[in-house]
Amino acid sequence: MLRLYYASGTCALATHIALEEAGAAFEAVAVDFGSQAQRSAEYLAINPKGRVPALVTDTGTLTETPALLLFVAQRFPAAELAPLSDPFALAQVQEFNSYLCSTVHVAHAHGRRGARWADDPGAHEAMKHKVASNMADCFELIERKLLRGPWVMGERYTICDPYLFTIGSWLEGDGVDTTRLPQVVAHRRRMQARPAVQKAVAAEGTQIP
Amino acid sequence: MLRLYYASGTCALATHIALEEAGAAFEAVAVDFGSQAQRSAEYLAINPKGRVPALVTDTGTLTETPALLLFVAQRFPAAELAPLSDPFALAQVQEFNSYLCSTVHVAHAHGRRGARWADDPGAHEAMKHKVASNMADCFELIERKLLRGPWVMGERYTICDPYLFTIGSWLEGDGVDTTRLPQVVAHRRRMQARPAVQKAVAAEGTQIP
Repeated sequence: MLRLYYASGTCALATHIALEEAGAAFEAVAVDFGSQAQRSAEYLAINPKGRVPALVTDTGTLTETPALLLFVAQRFPAAELAPLSDPFALAQVQEFNSYLCSTVHVAHAHGRRGARWADDPGAHEAMKHKVASNMADCFELIERKLLRGPWVMGERYTICDPYLFTIGSWLEGDGVDTTRLPQVVAHRRRMQARPAVQKAVAAEGTQIP
Repeated sequence: MLRLYYASGTCALATHIALEEAGAAFEAVAVDFGSQAQRSAEYLAINPKGRVPALVTDTGTLTETPALLLFVAQRFPAAELAPLSDPFALAQVQEFNSYLCSTVHVAHAHGRRGARWADDPGAHEAMKHKVASNMADCFELIERKLLRGPWVMGERYTICDPYLFTIGSWLEGDGVDTTRLPQVVAHRRRMQARPAVQKAVAAEGTQIP
């Protein structure tokens, strides 16, 4: 059985939702960030990066959200969560998820994780200051160009949707005015109507704005 | 025919090498970062993100290195650049490339692209100051845990190898002592012996330490 290590409010929610959408048999295990459990020897033995998500499978442990999402799609093909046999369409899925991972999530992380990239507290403040405008810029691109509607890739729900939903749920906390992002908000509401999303959100106790 | 937009010294080299390894028919087009050509209206029409690489295909344009690498592997299956039909093994490939993209490349970018995340010049200096230790930490994980040898995934050369080679070529410029990374340096030398790597490096005029 699969075991997903997650913390509420993190990007692990995307994989959690995808596992629910796939109808996978899995156990979700909370990692207590409050007590820094992600840095414990016990957890570092599972994921030496000290982050979530981590997915323990019969053949080994996987990390990194875009990889986990692709794994879920390919391991549970009946759920049709990605256009697996179309190289261009699958690359578009990975392109979107890679943008969320390496640009959007990184833009967000500068608000609370500035110590990753500088030791000076003044620099952390300067980084915090730019989070809202950076997140607004990223989501303007998503709103105008990337989110086709009703789902990210158009008519077909894919592994891009839980990832966008998850990172998009941080917008208000990052100080972004979501009234300027009507397509993103409509996508969030569409997601919230899905049983798999409701189940994962409830299990994690996540607050969605 | 495929068209790859690149700039010398950027992560576009990874896709360039992969295309050579695949024996793909493609044209490589240099984008002149010196004159800020990546911000020109002409280039933004190709890639609204204003970055490289961008790969123009018959069916549309793709960006983001992990997506481009997967596209090359899947579009040219005879080259066997990824374990396409094994969900766990393919997820491991994507996990490694996602780490390079969202953590390692991002750690490097704080040396010269600090303006992405803060407006204060003092913060940019503080970020520069931490690049060497962050890159050293990332590559210590790669050296000790992730790089199996002789190739990243073990006996089989994959799309992880050109990406590691590309980002690893920035280490000396980032102030990292590579004598402490013998496996990474040995991998670099192995890569340099490959005709596809030689061809892409020569075409871009890239300096490899």
